[in-house]
Parts: sequence; C-alpha cells; structure tokens
Amino acid sequence: MDKKNTVSADYKQHISREPFPNSNKHYATTTNGLKIPFRGVKQAKTTINGTEKDTTNPEVYLYDTSGPYTDPKATIDLTQGLPDVRNWLANDKQIIELPQPSSEYGNTRLKDSTLDTLRFPNIRKPKRSTRPSHTQMYYAKQGIVTPEMEYIAVRENLMMEDYHQHSGNSWGANIPKKITPEFVRDEVAKGRAIIPANINHPELEPMVIGRNFLTKVNANIGNSVVTSSIAEEVEKAVWACRWGADSIMDLSTGENIHETREWIIRNCPVPLGTVPIYQALEKVNGNPEALTWELFRDTLIEQAEQGVDYVTLHAGVLLKYIPLTASRLTGIVSRGGSIMAKWCLAHHKENFIYEHFSELCQILNKYDVSISLGDGLRPGSIADANDRAQFAELETLGELTEIAWKYDVQVMIEGPGHVPMQLIKENVDKQLKLTHEAPFYTLGPLTTDIAPGYDHITSAIGAALIGWFGTAMLCYVTPKEHLGLPNKEDVKDGLIAYKIAAHAADLAKGFPSAQYRDDALSKARFEFRWDDQFNLSLDPFRAREYHDETLPAEGAKIAHFCSMCGPKFCSMKITQEIRELANEKAATETEVIEEGLKEKAEEFTKKGSSIYL
Amino acid sequence: MDKKNTVSADYKQHISREPFPNSNKHYATTTNGLKIPFRGVKQAKTTINGTEKDTTNPEVYLYDTSGPYTDPKATIDLTQGLPDVRNWLANDKQIIELPQPSSEYGNTRLKDSTLDTLRFPNIRKPKRSTRPSHTQMYYAKQGIVTPEMEYIAVRENLMMEDYHQHSGNSWGANIPKKITPEFVRDEVAKGRAIIPANINHPELEPMVIGRNFLTKVNANIGNSVVTSSIAEEVEKAVWACRWGADSIMDLSTGENIHETREWIIRNCPVPLGTVPIYQALEKVNGNPEALTWELFRDTLIEQAEQGVDYVTLHAGVLLKYIPLTASRLTGIVSRGGSIMAKWCLAHHKENFIYEHFSELCQILNKYDVSISLGDGLRPGSIADANDRAQFAELETLGELTEIAWKYDVQVMIEGPGHVPMQLIKENVDKQLKLTHEAPFYTLGPLTTDIAPGYDHITSAIGAALIGWFGTAMLCYVTPKEHLGLPNKEDVKDGLIAYKIAAHAADLAKGFPSAQYRDDALSKARFEFRWDDQFNLSLDPFRAREYHDETLPAEGAKIAHFCSMCGPKFCSMKITQEIRELANEKAATETEVIEEGLKEKAEEFTKKGSSIYL
Repeated sequence: MDKKNTVSADYKQHISREPFPNSNKHYATTTNGLKIPFRGVKQAKTTINGTEKDTTNPEVYLYDTSGPYTDPKATIDLTQGLPDVRNWLANDKQIIELPQPSSEYGNTRLKDSTLDTLRFPNIRKPKRSTRPSHTQMYYAKQGIVTPEMEYIAVRENLMMEDYHQHSGNSWGANIPKKITPEFVRDEVAKGRAIIPANINHPELEPMVIGRNFLTKVNANIGNSVVTSSIAEEVEKAVWACRWGADSIMDLSTGENIHETREWIIRNCPVPLGTVPIYQALEKVNGNPEALTWELFRDTLIEQAEQGVDYVTLHAGVLLKYIPLTASRLTGIVSRGGSIMAKWCLAHHKENFIYEHFSELCQILNKYDVSISLGDGLRPGSIADANDRAQFAELETLGELTEIAWKYDVQVMIEGPGHVPMQLIKENVDKQLKLTHEAPFYTLGPLTTDIAPGYDHITSAIGAALIGWFGTAMLCYVTPKEHLGLPNKEDVKDGLIAYKIAAHAADLAKGFPSAQYRDDALSKARFEFRWDDQFNLSLDPFRAREYHDETLPAEGAKIAHFCSMCGPKFCSMKITQEIRELANEKAATETEVIEEGLKEKAEEFTKKGSSIYL
Repeated sequence: MDKKNTVSADYKQHISREPFPNSNKHYATTTNGLKIPFRGVKQAKTTINGTEKDTTNPEVYLYDTSGPYTDPKATIDLTQGLPDVRNWLANDKQIIELPQPSSEYGNTRLKDSTLDTLRFPNIRKPKRSTRPSHTQMYYAKQGIVTPEMEYIAVRENLMMEDYHQHSGNSWGANIPKKITPEFVRDEVAKGRAIIPANINHPELEPMVIGRNFLTKVNANIGNSVVTSSIAEEVEKAVWACRWGADSIMDLSTGENIHETREWIIRNCPVPLGTVPIYQALEKVNGNPEALTWELFRDTLIEQAEQGVDYVTLHAGVLLKYIPLTASRLTGIVSRGGSIMAKWCLAHHKENFIYEHFSELCQILNKYDVSISLGDGLRPGSIADANDRAQFAELETLGELTEIAWKYDVQVMIEGPGHVPMQLIKENVDKQLKLTHEAPFYTLGPLTTDIAPGYDHITSAIGAALIGWFGTAMLCYVTPKEHLGLPNKEDVKDGLIAYKIAAHAADLAKGFPSAQYRDDALSKARFEFRWDDQFNLSLDPFRAREYHDETLPAEGAKIAHFCSMCGPKFCSMKITQEIRELANEKAATETEVIEEGLKEKAEEFTKKGSSIYL
C-alpha cells in the first residue's frame, strides 16, 4: 500500500482545528509588517432581571499558542507544512542554503529510498549562518532589536497596559508597565531570557522564556518502543499547542525518529526541543558504552539542520558526581543522565559532552540552537530532594552557562523533579545564584511520590510554587507519569493542570494580564453569563459539559443558579437580591452603609487598622 | 411498593466494601480495651536479576478512615447502622436517655407515619449530658484524658516513632517524637485542636483536627433540588470515607433532610458536620426573611440529638459588615453568609446567631457538638481576596471563639475560598492571631478563577500551601465546583486531589509518618515491584489501570521498564546496571568513588561548602 497517501489521509482525518467557542483569531500588525496572533473571546451584555444593561462587556484578548490551526481562514496541508512566519530570514544574505545536509546521518536517511513513503514530502534545504556569530543573544548584546523580539513584545504586552489601571491589586507593581522590544532585548542580552528560534524553523511563532515574562509551559510528546504512528505524533503536537503548550519536546525513542521529527517541525508553530542523546543511543542500538563524541556531534548537526530550536544536553553529569548517587533511594532517574553516567563509568572517562562543550557551542551558534542544560542527577523521589549530587551538578551547569554565553549561545537550566514543598524555594535560589540567572526550566516538581495516576496534580502543586518563585518554563507531567506513555487525553489533562499552575504563578507574580482573565470570568460567573464563563475558561468544552450534565436546557444558560445549590441556595443570586433590596430601600440602605462604614472607620482608627493591611 | 425494602435493597446494592489490594485491616488494642483500626499493605520481597534478596520489605501501615466497610470480617447492615465504637458512653451515668426528641421538629417528623417508609428503621433515643459541662475541651481543661484522646493518640502516632530514626530528613525535627494521649489533651485544652464527637454519635471512630496533627480532609455531600435518593447519599458518605475523608459535611438542601441525615449518621464512621441554616431555610420555604432564632434553635437541638458532630454557624456576618461587600466583584458567595446578610438587611437587625451565641453554646455543650465558625464573607474570586469584609468578619470570629471557650465548646474557624498564592499565608497568620490559634478549616483556596471543571486542581494547589502554613483541615473542592452537583466520581476525584494536598502539607511540615509512605512507594518503584507501587498509592486501581493500558501482561508487573520510556531508556534500569557494574569492577569503582569523594571534599573546603547546605 502507498504508506505516504495513507499518512496524508491519516493527517486530514486526525488534525484538530475546531476554533474555540465564540472566539476570534486576531492578528496585531506592526509598522514592520509583523502579524502577531492572539485570541479574542466575545462576551454577552450584562442582564439584570431580564433587562440588558447598556454596559457592553469587552472582548477578552488571550495569548494564543494554537497557531494557524484555529484560524478558520487558514488553509492547512500537513504535507506542505505551515507557511513561514519568520519570512525575514529569507532576506538575510548571510544565511546560506546548503546543497545537502552536513550530517552523515541526515544524508544517509535522505538518500534511503525505502523511506520515501514515510518522509515529509517537501523537505527544505538546510540553512546555516556565515556570520562569525548568529544568535538572538548575539544581536541583543549588540543592542539590536530583532523581529523576533518585536514579535514577542507584542504577545507579552497583550492587555498589560490596558489592565494595569483597572487591576485593584497593588501586588502587580513590580511588573513593568509595558513589555517593549527593548525590554525583551535587554533580558536576552543578560542571559535572563532566551528566544529558542532555529534559523531552520521559519514556521515558528517566536516566544520568550524568562522569569520577567509570562510563565511558559512545555509538553513532552514522542513515541517509545510501544510506538505510535507519525500521524499520531504530529496530531499530538498540534493538539498540545491547541491546549496551550508554549513549547514541545519530541522525546521519541522508537523508529524513524528523524522522519517523525521532520513532519513535526514543519507543522509546529512553537519551539521544538529534543534530547539528542536519545537518538544517538538508538543509532548504537541502545548500548550506552558504544556512544562516541563523533556520533553525538553528527546527531547535533542533523537535528540543528532540521530546525530543532533547543537541545537538552546532560553535560553536567561528571564522573566524580556519580558516586554521590550511590546512597540515594532512587539513584539516577534522568534518562539522559543515566545514559551518560553509564558511559562515564564504563569508560572511566569524563562525560564527552562536557569535554567538547566549547566545540558544541560553536556548532549550535551557526543555527541559533539554544541549550537546555539537563539535570541528569535530579532527584527521583522526595527522599533524594536537594541532595549533594543534585547541587553538585547544578554548580557545573553554572560553569557551562558561562562558556555558552561566551559563544553567544542561549541557555536555560533544567530542574527537578521530586521536591517536598518546603525545599522548593532553595532550588530556585541556588539555580539563580549558581547559573547566573539563566532561565529555570523545571519538571514539576512532584510534591509527593504517593499518587501515581495523579502526578499531573502532585506536580502542578510544585509547578505553581516554583513558577511563583521564578521558574520561567514548566515542563508538564501527565497522569501517566511513572506508569506509561501518555495518550492524547493525558496530554490535554497534563496541559490544563500546567496552564493552571503557570497562570496561578503569573497571578502571584502580579501580571495584570493574568488578573484580567480571572476578573472577566468571575464577573461573568457573578452575572450568570454561563456561556461567557465557559468560553473564558481553560477548557470551555469541559465546563459546559459538566454544567449540562444536570441542567442541559438552553434556558439554564441564563438561569440564576446551577444544580450545585439549586435556586433557593445560590449565594450569588441572593447577593444580587441584597443589592436590589439596597436599591429599593435606597434611603435606609444608605443609612446602613454609612453607619456601617462609620463604625468600621472608628474601628480602624482604634486598632491602628493593623489587621486591614 | 414497599419503599423501605426498596431502600434497603438499594443499599445492599450500592454499598462499596471491596478491600484495597493486598491490604489487611488491623486493630491496635490498648490496655483500656480500645480497638483502633489501621490498614496494612503487604509488600513483596526485593528481587535483583530474578533472585530474591533476603531482605523482606515490611508491611506498610496507613491511617484508615474507611471504617468497618473495608473489613471483610465485619457484617454490615445499613438498616441496623454501625456498631458502637465509643461503647464507654453507654456506661456514663451522667448521660441520660431522653424519652423523646427535645426539638419540636424532631418530634413532628418522628410521629409522621407517612415517613415510616423513608425513616431509618432503628432510631436510637436521643441522649443529653446532665453535667454542668460535658465536652472534650472541658475534660482536657480538667487534665483528664478521655478514651477519645487515647484512641486518637494511637492513630496519629502510627509509624511516627518507627520512622523518626529512618527518615534522613532533618526538617522533621519540629514534630513531636511521639503523639501521646496527654499531648492530644493539652492541644484540645489550649483550643489548638478539636475532637468533634457528639455523645449521640457512638458509631464514630474518634479523630482530631489541629495543626500539630496530620492534616485532615473534609468531603461535602448532600442533595440539592436536583435531588438524589437517600440510598445514594449514604453510599456517597461511605464512598467518601473509603477514599480518605476524615470528616463529612451533609449539605443537603432538598427533601427529607432529617431522615437522610439519620441514615447517614448511623452508618458514618467519621465526624459529620452540617450547616443548620440550610435546613432552617427549608422549613420556611426558602425565604430568608422568615427565619427566626426560635426556629434556628429548634433546628440546632434537632440535629444535636441526631448526632451531628459539628455545625457551621455564620455568626460573624454582622449588619455593619454587609456594606463592605458592596464594592466586591463577586459579593457574598457563602450560601449561609448570603442568607444571614439578607435577613439582617431585611429586618435591619443584628445577626440572630451572633446575638444568641452564648445561649447556643450552652445548648451545644450538652451534646458536645463542636462549632465551625463559618466565613460568610469569604472572597468568591481572586479579585476579592483578603479584603476588608473578609478580615472584619474574622475579627468577630475571634470574639466568638473566646465566648465558646468560656462554655468549653470546641471551635474551628472556616477560611477561604479564592486566594492567589502570594496572599495565602496572610490568611493563616491573621487567623491564628485573631482567633487565638483555633484550628483553621479552609475551602481550598482556589488559586485562580479561570478553570471551572478543574477546580479540584486550582484549589489543591492552594490547599497544599495553606495546609503547610498551618491549616488543620482542608475542605475538598470537586471538579464540578461552580457548575453542578458532584456525583460519586467527582467525590473521589476531589478526595484524591485533597489527600495529595494534605499529604504534601504533612511532608512539608515534616511528619515522619508521611515521609514513610513516600519512601516505601519510591523504593518499590525503584525495585520494579509494580504491584507494591500500585498498592501503596492513593488509588491502586487507577495506577494499575493506567499501567496495564499499554502493558497488560502479568509479566510486565516484574518487567524493569514501562511503556513510558521502554526497556532501553528506563533510567532506573540503567541505574541498577550502573550499580551492578560498580560491583563487578569493585576495585576500580572504589577508586572512582574515592577519587570522586576526595575531589568533592576538596571543593567543599574551597567553597566553604555553602552550596551544599
């Protein structure tokens, strides 16, 4: 059978494009001709006692990671890939198109005709920069604002200014009143933020990872031996973006990793990250001892030329640190970490990624691939949290960060894992200090080990906390963690849990644009605009489904109660009656209010108002 | 048809009794003849390379809230109710049996023959104490250790001593090495802990609520107008206990509340709480203005004589505070709070529960009913968190606490609600200060408003945090919050999320008995004892189901990998290989280790070991 056609058919069948209810896809345009997407949620008018109040509730604007897929006007053909967003790259004369892949493996796969049916049909020629240095960090250091920075500033600034004055909360004060391209540039120049954007990924909608910006969420996808088809993986990627993934990591460890990755990148609107050591290990049939620097180097170039935006490197797993894990309850739980540890011990040599780090940075610079320094020695249980092995590696990651920055390569630092709540802050404090404020990127952390099957929750607790403390990106954990490979539903459940954690963190950090959405939804809730409440939520479909389980009638969508309390006991309904009561008895009511406020006022003075701070 | 038989049949059909996998129901016995239940989870031996190591993994003992239902030896007949646990009450000559209920309503319902088919078939005669004062707090103040305190000490002390020495964590230091009956007594005497235990609820397995004990979880059940049957509500209660509810609140607002409650209490092994104003409102057909103190008083007595262990009283909603809610985004969101507020405004009188608080305490003392002071003005949105209305009421709750304590009535304080993370701690600090360290009992709080359908998660984040900061009991929130009445699955999902939050809080507070379970499960995970990992988890059924989705074969239960990473990439498998490798090459390995440790040692000295703290 013609596998290719099957694949394509497969895609058309699988791909999720349904726009969100009552939402518009908008594009902000800049003088430089950039088109930045965002989502608008339309709202109904406020109705009191069946009469519409003249106040119209504004359309709510939301940061949108879903790409063109949710734009009804966009034509999507996965066999063509997404249109270029970063079209300015094509005009850069210093970026040259290579006649063929520079990696041996890339060439072998390209020439292998048995893969024709699997291969993405419209392979681009790989590109490389001929500049001495070519990364977002390099330009930032030169004081240059790139189109990526301008693009990002618009996304991050959405609602910021508008809501700063409306937000009643003083705790938003420490956030810049406006996110400007220059602010983005300066954060990148300092290494406090990164813009993962490979020049071979022009389909990318640029985004930033840094603790002075909105907290980002990463979703891991990828097949394992219990393999899923290429079509499934691409749909998983699109599906993840749909539910709010700011970044995706392809952790495939099965067959045809190279071809699967090509399909994903060409159709992926967010940065794609990988762990190259996984593919390298596949190339030596899963035998860590057989790994070599040359093989790893070839794999890096292969992936860089496909358009991978950032790579996880377990360069901090040093020979001398391995003994520190001997007394652990759960040893080494990072896949990459355990692979490198086994290589080090087997050869009694130092980690080859560490040894060749400078050379590696020079390679990645040519494509502007960012580095995610892996925490190969992260704790895998509450008992092992914040131990010497973990922090020893973190110190080495600090040294490597300085080397990468010397080559203008952007860096973020990966973090745990499993950490009880009272030990979480120490992780952020040490990370910021030891790695010179490079963005922190953590997996959870899980705050307890006792709930396999619910680790999206055990870890959402830790993720919200560590996000509040300053982690820039949160890697999601699905309900299947520790148990099996996540399916589409697990991906969604993991993402919703992490959008909650990231949003809770942004609220705690004081982002007015975060507060804005909570206020809009709560106002809709209080005014019994059920549809608006559903549509403004992270999962409109689920919210509506739960409501309709007990009150399916359309009339219930304007009813002043739900089945939880019933009509007589709805506090919000009674509160509105109280306010009406207040209006009827305006005079007396005013007295009550004045009296009340007067008494309170006296109390304040008496008590020095200390308890009202 | 004979409704009663139907009901009974109904019960037999619905009731959940299946014991947890590989678990034993144990009873610790005391010299005074108390039998305290706990659950033991048996573990397999550790196996390395197919050969059993001689080390046997001990049976893991867990605090058990499920009552006799999970005891295969127990005979359960819901129409008979549970056997007495607190049999010592029967021997107390100062507790007299009343010929008939003292409440007008209780009598009316008892005499109403049309209710015969609904009524619990073996009604007990109500009891009342003839002592001048009769509460756990009274005895505690006298320096007397009650059987309840002795019972509780055993439950709370489970694994504490055994694990104190094993736990590698220094952060457990602030927890008492042993929970003694005297410690329980002293905490109750100080008002820092309560033992909700109505003398009319002898079926109760005593438990304590206080911040120096394990964090407790409450589950709300109860029907609304969209009514569920009595049988469903009883099963919901048993179901809740099965999944870890330390306490249950019956928030029924529909028909036959009185009869439903009787069925629940007679079959309930945990303390049952109610919000009497709900039933009072039903008695006046849902019209708040028609409420009177006399009606409320009669309702209190009615419920006290049925065996309700604690009642929520919205006594802090004062007339003068209502205006403070005028400028709120979501006004008053507590049902009881909005009812009392409407009453106050309609009559322009002060809250009658506040006015009659002393009289009310004298009534509750006779049955040892504890008070949960409701936060009628809690915030219902992020925007309204920590505002003046909320803290003004909290101050009044402090005054009321002192009055209750004067009458030896046990008190806990209810808390919010909706609070962003950075404002959570202030809630606990103010509560402890203003209410003199009475136990805090919070609903969540939700850390964002934007995820209806997932509020068990938005609130589990806040619950874990506030539990760590010192909240004694967490009231769960189900996925249906704000949308509809929870069904059985929602009750379970809410409970698991809150057992996670409570356990994470106990870990953070440093309870060795909490750490114990994490370590046991993680050891099982690291040793690929899959069944043990499942059985030690909060939901063994879900964990197994998720694992088996991709690897159903029984052989996979000892496989050294799962479908998440597959055999080649399982870090734990590789780590074990590393350790074996280390053994083979013992000599060289030792060198490596020594070298490694030596280098580290030198580093420590160089760096003043600051980063290893």
